[in-house]
Amino acid sequence: MIYLDNNATTQVDKEVLKVMLPFLEEEYANPSSMYDFAKKPSVALKIAREQVRDFYGAEDVKEVFFTSCGSESANMAIKGALNCNKNKKHIITTKVEHPCVLNTYKSFENEGYKVDYISVSSDGQLNIDELKEKITKNTALVSVMWANNETGVINPVEEIAEIVKSKSPETVFFVDGVQAAGKIPMSVKDTQIDMVGISGHKFHAPKGVGALYVNKSCRLTPLINGGHQERGLRAGTENVPYIAGIGKAAELAKSALPYENSEIKRLRDKLENGILKNVFNARLNSPLINRVPNTTNIGFEYVEGELILLHLSDLGICASSGSACTSGSLEPSHVLRAMGIPFTALHGSIRFSLSRYTKESDIDFVIEKMPSIMDKLTKISPFQDELMKLKNLRR
Amino acid sequence: MIYLDNNATTQVDKEVLKVMLPFLEEEYANPSSMYDFAKKPSVALKIAREQVRDFYGAEDVKEVFFTSCGSESANMAIKGALNCNKNKKHIITTKVEHPCVLNTYKSFENEGYKVDYISVSSDGQLNIDELKEKITKNTALVSVMWANNETGVINPVEEIAEIVKSKSPETVFFVDGVQAAGKIPMSVKDTQIDMVGISGHKFHAPKGVGALYVNKSCRLTPLINGGHQERGLRAGTENVPYIAGIGKAAELAKSALPYENSEIKRLRDKLENGILKNVFNARLNSPLINRVPNTTNIGFEYVEGELILLHLSDLGICASSGSACTSGSLEPSHVLRAMGIPFTALHGSIRFSLSRYTKESDIDFVIEKMPSIMDKLTKISPFQDELMKLKNLRR
Repeated sequence: MIYLDNNATTQVDKEVLKVMLPFLEEEYANPSSMYDFAKKPSVALKIAREQVRDFYGAEDVKEVFFTSCGSESANMAIKGALNCNKNKKHIITTKVEHPCVLNTYKSFENEGYKVDYISVSSDGQLNIDELKEKITKNTALVSVMWANNETGVINPVEEIAEIVKSKSPETVFFVDGVQAAGKIPMSVKDTQIDMVGISGHKFHAPKGVGALYVNKSCRLTPLINGGHQERGLRAGTENVPYIAGIGKAAELAKSALPYENSEIKRLRDKLENGILKNVFNARLNSPLINRVPNTTNIGFEYVEGELILLHLSDLGICASSGSACTSGSLEPSHVLRAMGIPFTALHGSIRFSLSRYTKESDIDFVIEKMPSIMDKLTKISPFQDELMKLKNLRR
Repeated sequence: MIYLDNNATTQVDKEVLKVMLPFLEEEYANPSSMYDFAKKPSVALKIAREQVRDFYGAEDVKEVFFTSCGSESANMAIKGALNCNKNKKHIITTKVEHPCVLNTYKSFENEGYKVDYISVSSDGQLNIDELKEKITKNTALVSVMWANNETGVINPVEEIAEIVKSKSPETVFFVDGVQAAGKIPMSVKDTQIDMVGISGHKFHAPKGVGALYVNKSCRLTPLINGGHQERGLRAGTENVPYIAGIGKAAELAKSALPYENSEIKRLRDKLENGILKNVFNARLNSPLINRVPNTTNIGFEYVEGELILLHLSDLGICASSGSACTSGSLEPSHVLRAMGIPFTALHGSIRFSLSRYTKESDIDFVIEKMPSIMDKLTKISPFQDELMKLKNLRR
């Protein structure tokens, strides 16, 4: 099995599981309890909060809140901030946010909010001038993802934060950091970013735990009301095993950043170049600059993405088209459409996303197999004339 | 270590952990992915949903939604239902709900809702006539816990559902089932209950997973917007290990109900009678009827609860005063206050809650140690005259 879908989810690191297991076995106390038996779980929460603080490059552990996933982090940030700014009814986001974030904004359109969706260029770079123009004192929230899940494009969120605050200091700036976490350094301390959401299972913690950085100057109402947990901002008995896990995963991910930016990048580039060189109908959808090191998005013209994925799956290769959250839908990717990727490649676009578990032999195997898959699929494509033209053009 | 705080949290069953582990190790695919590697996680979700459907005694797996905890289940139910009934601004609940639920209603009081809190009798039984009187066609939601976490009192939720619907068919009836799950049979199928929330870690699944039963006739908006997961009602990549875990835990809990209602009840009664017999300043706060089999709440007059807990903890005995969610607070229990428990016992009330892991020797040890702890603590109590009177009275 060759797993190249690490932007969908990742394998839990063995060291992470090791940290978690005692809390799934003998150390099962509720960390809020008074007795001695609750001390280890309670200490585990403290350690994890410090690890995640360090991961965020945040100043204070009080700025770190644990959640159950990236979607919860985003919903908590967005709904919590809008609830504290009810007189402002304007939101700015981008056309290429994750469906989880876009759907949340769609729900606000039905509640009297005006939402502006900022466009991106053909190589996925955000139109910052457009963003600048849209911000007014009536803007409650600006929301930009740190890195895109499909293309890997990195947005200059530190710079955007400065633009937002210089035009409207009271506007809250939320960054969906899910796809940046573990791939590029994060350091919120000296920025004007208000909130950053992350999801553990994108960096080798389990599915079902996330975090939200909230700058101490930023006000929120809870999404989940109830007990005193997470300083009253997120009720529910703490998921001690997973919180210990995301803490350890954050520590490991931070220390693996140099490897991510050298070796994983090298393997990704090898895969990308190998496919682009050997497959005549392949085109790069991802940009060459401003991209996380592990992701490439390649369009295969005149073939159907789902068919490519099936053939890859038959060889034990896991990759994806679009996000897992929209899989099953036959709609082409909203991200690639926003970039104006030609229709001919839109339906045949595949994302390969690597991790520190990816081996050179995995990459070599995919480079070797891709041409024969594409031979087979182009032969059954209804676009034979177009494929012939393309072949002659690229030759 | 003697753990008698199973209403706060429980040990994960070894069989539950065994079902979970593959999904924390090799079977890490995102269940939404298209490739073969995603099949096992995807099947695991189906199995768990069926197990939890059966646990609820629900008709259809489509009525089962997985969440990250009991608090999320309650927030999803309450906020989701109120969002679908925005023209109705009246809520009815009880004075003895879990803080998680009460705090959610408090937040609605600030948003223009009128909330009625139904009283309970001195033995914790809900005042059904009062409830009946308060229901009008303008009541958006009635919310009653199935069993109380502190006293174990069981509310007749099936009967209450009929009252609610006969007085106002459009009123939604939510049941917080967290403390009933695994202790008494649940069968929602032939009732008029709209929603029931449960929390895995109260019945030997891990902390960080819950479920919500939603009758198919009941409409909700999502608390966590985003992807297609949980039929669009709860976004976020599914926590496959924990969902598999709560499924197995539900299956085990259902099959352990006869043991719960015989052996656990026998041990609980032995503990209760042993303490009441041997400790002169002990009084039973829990009622003798309508109570879950594992819980007893005992008031120790003229002594401080926190001191009792410390002395128990020194002997390796885990018990609690009030809910873990409010521990650290010095306020006496809102549940015992609502029952009118005398001030003299209010501050010294301790909850013992058993599970299928409780051994007879645990119970014998507590019965043996309690008198000497109480000897020590009554000696340093400032209420010597009152204690003397009590001793003479009980002799």
